[in-house]
Amino acid sequence: MAEFPKTNRNRIKRAPKRGLYDRESIYQILDEALICHVGFVEAEQPYVIPINFARVEDTILMHGANSSRLIKHIQAGYPVCVEVTLVDGLVLARSVFNHSVNYRSVVLYGVGRAVEGNQEKLAALEAITEHFLPGRWLEARLPNRKELNATSVVSIKIDQASAKVRSGPPVDDEADQGLPIWAGVIPLQEKPLPPERDKLMTMDVAVPEYITKYTRKHK
Amino acid sequence: MAEFPKTNRNRIKRAPKRGLYDRESIYQILDEALICHVGFVEAEQPYVIPINFARVEDTILMHGANSSRLIKHIQAGYPVCVEVTLVDGLVLARSVFNHSVNYRSVVLYGVGRAVEGNQEKLAALEAITEHFLPGRWLEARLPNRKELNATSVVSIKIDQASAKVRSGPPVDDEADQGLPIWAGVIPLQEKPLPPERDKLMTMDVAVPEYITKYTRKHK
Repeated sequence: MAEFPKTNRNRIKRAPKRGLYDRESIYQILDEALICHVGFVEAEQPYVIPINFARVEDTILMHGANSSRLIKHIQAGYPVCVEVTLVDGLVLARSVFNHSVNYRSVVLYGVGRAVEGNQEKLAALEAITEHFLPGRWLEARLPNRKELNATSVVSIKIDQASAKVRSGPPVDDEADQGLPIWAGVIPLQEKPLPPERDKLMTMDVAVPEYITKYTRKHK
Repeated sequence: MAEFPKTNRNRIKRAPKRGLYDRESIYQILDEALICHVGFVEAEQPYVIPINFARVEDTILMHGANSSRLIKHIQAGYPVCVEVTLVDGLVLARSVFNHSVNYRSVVLYGVGRAVEGNQEKLAALEAITEHFLPGRWLEARLPNRKELNATSVVSIKIDQASAKVRSGPPVDDEADQGLPIWAGVIPLQEKPLPPERDKLMTMDVAVPEYITKYTRKHK
């Protein structure tokens, strides 16, 4: 099914024309985001924790230490909300009221489970590492049994999801169009700076191409 | 008081040496973040919504349409969690296990209230606009009575907060140091691209200095 069904939980209520429910748009935003923000509830108190992740088909994968409260909570099967936001620019209208942000965000809902078994855990860690930096899994030293045992992996099946996207120039009231105020967009882009080699490196290893060519830009 | 008290709710449990509780560190991270992620609970379901904001002393200010579910929820005085994260770099260890992210994050807890009265609302909107883009409030057309009536503003007093910061090179196991694997950090920085003038601008207004000199860099 290409679209997530719209329910009271995932329907975009404010500015509904900015809402998207198709998997392609939602997955593209998730795949571009480096970290997500996980909302969960304990004793009626909301918590939000940032964490890196990967999406594989219709699941979100995360990992952490066995003792991580967030990971234990997700393993236990409580409902979670996962949100990512990519900020694309500041939208400067003539009026303060019409200022906005160009952004692409996703909010999804689901229930997690523990990923068990070394093979399934390794596959999840590969997805998370490749989402973090494509190409890295093939170069780095892979997890050994001790590290694998110290790591908990969880999988959250995406139950419902929606995206919200704003792009383009400011939209001002017609009466404000002629005001002598600079209006437009300041685009924002997350950019990698030159890689900083670890001073403890003893061998003369060239910077791999997946690092020199790395970009946070939307593909 | 310079430090937020540590309680079971805000204490950093994983990697406690990365935890900070002093107001200066926490406020600096909040002030640099463009948007925050607000966690709240409705009918036991967690929600996370991204929104822009401002910090003034020990309060977080947000605004939205009168009909916004998030704003109405905050006005009603339910507990909320506000999280911001600044990503500073990808930390590439030799082992997959020791990969990390350089980041600065804040998680805070509080209870909101409606900001009433045109003067207090205007002051909050000024803070939010100046947090969004310093200098903008003095140039843009300020809110009129109709716009002010259509806007709800909420204030969340920071009850508890903590920051978590990771910086510096990867930390690998000693046994991995000699491996022929490139290790180090790819720094990431959100950068403004050249401003895009709104095509509907009829007057020849120069790009203001607060836009040409705008940077997302940490001051």
